[in-house]
Amino acid sequence: MNDFNVPADSKLYSQMVELGVKAKSAASILANLSSEQKNKCLIAMADAILANKEAIEQANILDIEDAKKAGLSAAMLDRLTLTAKRIETMAKGVKEVANLPDPLGKELDSRQRPNGLKLSKITCPIGVIVIIFESRPNVTADAAALCFKSGNVTILRGGKEALRSNLVIAGIMVKAAQKIYQDFPLEAIQVVPTTDRQAIPMLLSLTEFIDLCIPRGGEGLIRTVISCSHVPVIKHYKGVCHVYVNEDADIEMAQRIIINAKVQRPSACNAAETLLIDEKIAKQALPMLASALVEQGVKLHCDRNSLDILKSELPPETAMDSIVPIDKEEWAKEYLDLILSVGVVKNESEAIAHINRYGSRHTECIITKSREKAIRFQHEVDAAVVCWNASTRFNDGGEFGMGAEIGISTDKVGPRGPMGLDELTTYKWLVYGNGQVRA
Amino acid sequence: MNDFNVPADSKLYSQMVELGVKAKSAASILANLSSEQKNKCLIAMADAILANKEAIEQANILDIEDAKKAGLSAAMLDRLTLTAKRIETMAKGVKEVANLPDPLGKELDSRQRPNGLKLSKITCPIGVIVIIFESRPNVTADAAALCFKSGNVTILRGGKEALRSNLVIAGIMVKAAQKIYQDFPLEAIQVVPTTDRQAIPMLLSLTEFIDLCIPRGGEGLIRTVISCSHVPVIKHYKGVCHVYVNEDADIEMAQRIIINAKVQRPSACNAAETLLIDEKIAKQALPMLASALVEQGVKLHCDRNSLDILKSELPPETAMDSIVPIDKEEWAKEYLDLILSVGVVKNESEAIAHINRYGSRHTECIITKSREKAIRFQHEVDAAVVCWNASTRFNDGGEFGMGAEIGISTDKVGPRGPMGLDELTTYKWLVYGNGQVRA
Repeated sequence: MNDFNVPADSKLYSQMVELGVKAKSAASILANLSSEQKNKCLIAMADAILANKEAIEQANILDIEDAKKAGLSAAMLDRLTLTAKRIETMAKGVKEVANLPDPLGKELDSRQRPNGLKLSKITCPIGVIVIIFESRPNVTADAAALCFKSGNVTILRGGKEALRSNLVIAGIMVKAAQKIYQDFPLEAIQVVPTTDRQAIPMLLSLTEFIDLCIPRGGEGLIRTVISCSHVPVIKHYKGVCHVYVNEDADIEMAQRIIINAKVQRPSACNAAETLLIDEKIAKQALPMLASALVEQGVKLHCDRNSLDILKSELPPETAMDSIVPIDKEEWAKEYLDLILSVGVVKNESEAIAHINRYGSRHTECIITKSREKAIRFQHEVDAAVVCWNASTRFNDGGEFGMGAEIGISTDKVGPRGPMGLDELTTYKWLVYGNGQVRA
Repeated sequence: MNDFNVPADSKLYSQMVELGVKAKSAASILANLSSEQKNKCLIAMADAILANKEAIEQANILDIEDAKKAGLSAAMLDRLTLTAKRIETMAKGVKEVANLPDPLGKELDSRQRPNGLKLSKITCPIGVIVIIFESRPNVTADAAALCFKSGNVTILRGGKEALRSNLVIAGIMVKAAQKIYQDFPLEAIQVVPTTDRQAIPMLLSLTEFIDLCIPRGGEGLIRTVISCSHVPVIKHYKGVCHVYVNEDADIEMAQRIIINAKVQRPSACNAAETLLIDEKIAKQALPMLASALVEQGVKLHCDRNSLDILKSELPPETAMDSIVPIDKEEWAKEYLDLILSVGVVKNESEAIAHINRYGSRHTECIITKSREKAIRFQHEVDAAVVCWNASTRFNDGGEFGMGAEIGISTDKVGPRGPMGLDELTTYKWLVYGNGQVRA
């Protein structure tokens, strides 16, 4: 028996163990491929995705038909759909990974000890990574390409409505690689071949074969994964990001940044959810910022002070139905929508305390001309990325120059912030001796 | 209700939430202490431990009396006992941490982006760390000192039989720090003030307040922690370490290393549990190695080939009761005793495959004069530390020049190998802009 009250000899459990064993064995082979071999494989994978566009579309159509029968929303159906253009973008993404530098074999540290031992800390693959994601099937190709380039085996678990699409994409990729490199293991990229929900806790109990899980999705998905996983999980729960406009801010810059942070892509985890403004400038600056936001269609959920200021300072023709009192619980809310919490704070200390209390350790921003205040804010705010006079939307692998990213982490163990290829590696210590023993 | 079927308003649950809230709030204060302030506090803590030796001994005597009544073994009672000498060693350990370099504020990476943004990746504290350990109460001071120096709050959970000793030690440390720095939060070092076993899963469900758990102990303890924790856990399950004697080995060196790796401290996790020898030299070299091991009191559990060689090659007067056939399951066993698994392998490939199958990713060793074979072994073996011509016993924070260590990790996410001060930090990305927004 295992933790799930499923007999260890159940068919599903055996299937998951087999998946794990095969993945682990493929991991040894991947770890030994050269950069050149990996890049050739990636290019072949990209070409094969293009060459097999029709097969992918056919599988996708079957998935869509079933999803329609199951009553999926239009938004979900759109996410599920692989148009010809989306397939081309997918192939392009895989090819771009081939052009990124190899993250393996980098020396992170080296030491010589008094007894003559030499130590070298070098990057190497993590091993077997389980990626759990929701309906968008193009994630299959993106995630598999990044994991493969960093020497890792991928086990993918997408939304159940995309199973056919995911299986076809993964199959095309591994077969293409095997054509140009005959020892390439077909188990290097696997899709969990069942939609049974018990498969996930079983797979994530196999600490011997699975090294890491990366769930990509909403807070509910991530909490479910955490509650059943025995292997390490890298994730973020949510992105409750703040823009704090300090008394020494350039207000025009503040307006540009808060609009960008809130409006440019409100569904992104690095979009702003809260505007905090210093009380010393609130009366003068807040009405201007609020008008600009409302003009962009943003609804403001305001604390008492900001509400009072806006009611008394905004011109009477302003659409006041966009400016409402905040519910206390909304300070910790990720709206993912054109809604912004607005609060007035006494000073930097109160801003920092508010953010450390309600923030999600994701991305925080201060707008100020004061170097001293900015440095204090960056030092004291606990978040993966802390911006000074720049939009929260820059917390992104591409914007950080990492190439593609597999997600953003708010963990404090392992990678934090955007996760590119370097963040998909671990390291080992190599010890070089000439017979040393310990005294 | 929470995961443990305990009403969320239970007294114990509220107590754990309170512990977490206070720890989180103390974490902000610790993160802002300067190196000098922290070092002064550490020296004051060490002095206070010495000055309060009697109070510690008195608490310890009460713990020992109860432990005797509860029928603890002599070995366990010894581990629990704090003699005057052990208390002095504890104080010395805390003082040594003061002399180590501060791990915070190091720049790990810096980048300038085409849009003018500057990025800086700097080390910072993790936050709140729960340390779970077994009976030895001196761990309280060691772990608390390392966590404090790296800017982290510690919540300690030792063995239930050591609760009084642990509470007294932690109390002495924080009070000493507060005497020299009045804003020092007493919650910087806390001992879970109950022996209730349900306290641990409750505490480790509080992802908002607890950032990391480090369990130190046997595989059973660690698996229990993993199965209930919602926060990241750094650990190793066990140390099944191999010494592989390649055909090109200096046999005298091999003997010195395997004796050291097995005999010097068999209860350590980095002690060797398996000797693998190349079949091309087994007939000549194995009898010599085996005699030397048996002479040191080591019992050999041999595979068929090594047993045949030893039976036919060892002089008849050898104590053959120390040389017995291996049980298949013992290849994955951590004996922690003067017992060694012995196997003959065809070549490096078979050695690597054996180690990757049965090893615990902890410490592995090859003895060879061949640079090429050593490099292949170091590259392909999946372990935190891979030694070439050096004892496995060197996988240790002190031996690596890290100063003290809080443990050894075989995880592949976060720190791997010995964990010193640097391994108790995370990082954040600081973004410096002049008004940039995302296009």
